[in-house]
Amino acid sequence: MTTRGRRDGRVTIAEVAALAGVSPGAVSMVFNGTGRISEATKARVREAARTLNWRPNAAATALRTSRTRTIGLVLSSSGPLPEIGAGNVEFISGIESILSPRRYGLLLNFQLAHQDETEFYRTLTEQQRMDGVILTNSVIEDTRFALLRELGLPAVLVGTPWREGEVDFIDADPPGAGIPEAVEHLVALGHRRIAYLSGPERFVLPRIRRQAFTETLTAHGIEPRAILELPYSPQAAAEATRALVKEDDRPTAFIYGTDHMAIAGIRTLQSMGMSVPRDASVIGHEGLSIGEWIDPQLTTVQRYGWQRGRAAAAKLLEVLGEEIGEDVPLERPALLIRASTGPAPAEDA
Amino acid sequence: MTTRGRRDGRVTIAEVAALAGVSPGAVSMVFNGTGRISEATKARVREAARTLNWRPNAAATALRTSRTRTIGLVLSSSGPLPEIGAGNVEFISGIESILSPRRYGLLLNFQLAHQDETEFYRTLTEQQRMDGVILTNSVIEDTRFALLRELGLPAVLVGTPWREGEVDFIDADPPGAGIPEAVEHLVALGHRRIAYLSGPERFVLPRIRRQAFTETLTAHGIEPRAILELPYSPQAAAEATRALVKEDDRPTAFIYGTDHMAIAGIRTLQSMGMSVPRDASVIGHEGLSIGEWIDPQLTTVQRYGWQRGRAAAAKLLEVLGEEIGEDVPLERPALLIRASTGPAPAEDA
Repeated sequence: MTTRGRRDGRVTIAEVAALAGVSPGAVSMVFNGTGRISEATKARVREAARTLNWRPNAAATALRTSRTRTIGLVLSSSGPLPEIGAGNVEFISGIESILSPRRYGLLLNFQLAHQDETEFYRTLTEQQRMDGVILTNSVIEDTRFALLRELGLPAVLVGTPWREGEVDFIDADPPGAGIPEAVEHLVALGHRRIAYLSGPERFVLPRIRRQAFTETLTAHGIEPRAILELPYSPQAAAEATRALVKEDDRPTAFIYGTDHMAIAGIRTLQSMGMSVPRDASVIGHEGLSIGEWIDPQLTTVQRYGWQRGRAAAAKLLEVLGEEIGEDVPLERPALLIRASTGPAPAEDA
Repeated sequence: MTTRGRRDGRVTIAEVAALAGVSPGAVSMVFNGTGRISEATKARVREAARTLNWRPNAAATALRTSRTRTIGLVLSSSGPLPEIGAGNVEFISGIESILSPRRYGLLLNFQLAHQDETEFYRTLTEQQRMDGVILTNSVIEDTRFALLRELGLPAVLVGTPWREGEVDFIDADPPGAGIPEAVEHLVALGHRRIAYLSGPERFVLPRIRRQAFTETLTAHGIEPRAILELPYSPQAAAEATRALVKEDDRPTAFIYGTDHMAIAGIRTLQSMGMSVPRDASVIGHEGLSIGEWIDPQLTTVQRYGWQRGRAAAAKLLEVLGEEIGEDVPLERPALLIRASTGPAPAEDA
């Protein structure tokens, strides 16, 4: 790789894309001669490139044309060991449902907590084992997008980028990522002491959700009862729930960052002699099928992991110039009301 | 590939291995100059090859020496769509824990129900995207092992092969795959009407378990109350449970093929007004962590998916000549007694 990125003042593909009013992927398609781009858009992209005196990185183009028919998926583990979250099972299956019939392979890559990010992505690219990569876990001040552009590896992010124009992405989350609907549901049921047990705020999604949680409550003149930043683990959720229940002014409703956290929360409440939803309401986040099979059935923000996987894979294949030739619908997350939420206990109604 | 396999009477690597009293992987290591093989074993393998007039397939050897540092994992989907079972999450994470630190990639491949098997494996091999492959879902009369040998792609099976000497494998299942312990536990609790709701019998594992179920009960002079061959799905488990409970002589204990099936079974029993374990006992199979967070906590055959993944990856890397340099322990599945099993209801004790 010889391109040295923006550090020496060189124009990046993102700037060309911004000037042309298209995604970086579209610029890449125009210069690689791939994908379906209208003549008008092509002209606009070429004009923007001329204006900024930008040329595609030759090495990157060469890399992209020597196809491996393999797509990489980067999963981040918060610890020293690789870990596939339960929420990723449907997501990966969805990706495969687009790749398998087209004879593309999916290469799993775990970025572990202790690994140097630059080194990790450089190795991915140098090995030339993949045509492009699907990124998850959008983080605040994500440096991966600039790095991947520099390395010439096409990428699609699943989630909300921390900043516009940095990367092609698919984002199924509505404003607030389903949290406003969850809060409105609880407020309508009479809840006033609502706790939010969320995930690590170095990720974009928990931060969006926390803001939505606070704003929606504030609009009703209600203070958040508690907002806790936890690891995405059932154990952490169980401990935090136990601590909150022991407090004087205990919450009557709990929103959790994942379904597994919520299931652990229900279990903890029950083990402390509380009935769900009679004494406390619980809402999860993901929509895993296991939520149907617990007692009470879990109210949750349904995220359609299968659809997200399909949309991400289709988007990346399009960036690579493949014609998908089928609809890949992506529904917005919606609150799935089942049995773990109910009216606030009488003394709070 | 020019080797035509055993169909034209050519000697196979399995026959050389059998004569030398080693695994096919060991024969491959001797002829590829990889792995740590004692001089005595090497001599025995070379002698067996001479006796049978066998030579390694040159194309296969060439393929193996042009390394991709990528390992394939083949998962079978029982339907037309790719599906990762909940039980595979820890398994895949375990594989990655061996591969990632050694900079090997893991390429997921789904063999879908309608795909022609020969064509599928031929494509995998021809694409030269992987150095070797981990196979799951051992089936009766499995033809994949002969095919992969013919294609020259090293393979390790996770599970019990349907026949000896066909493939390198790791098999953590004790005789009966944990079912004898589960049955003994129920019989000791006074249960006499025990149902087994298992998986598809074209796989080896459900067949081994069903035989163990019948034999263990028979040793106590007890007839199986019911043995059902079901898809591995919570829905199927729920329906079958409901039907059994409606029968006159309903079971007092239920053993399921997976944890998710067992969780659906508990939910179904509870929704029919029964208390678990007071009115019926339930045992799952896998040991997923979610089993701790349901009420009652699930008694299950703990299978150590993480360890199985690590052992499979380590075995395949050894076949490929890598030195692992660390212990990769693999515990035998064991019955994990939690709260979903208890004494048989009074009228049956």
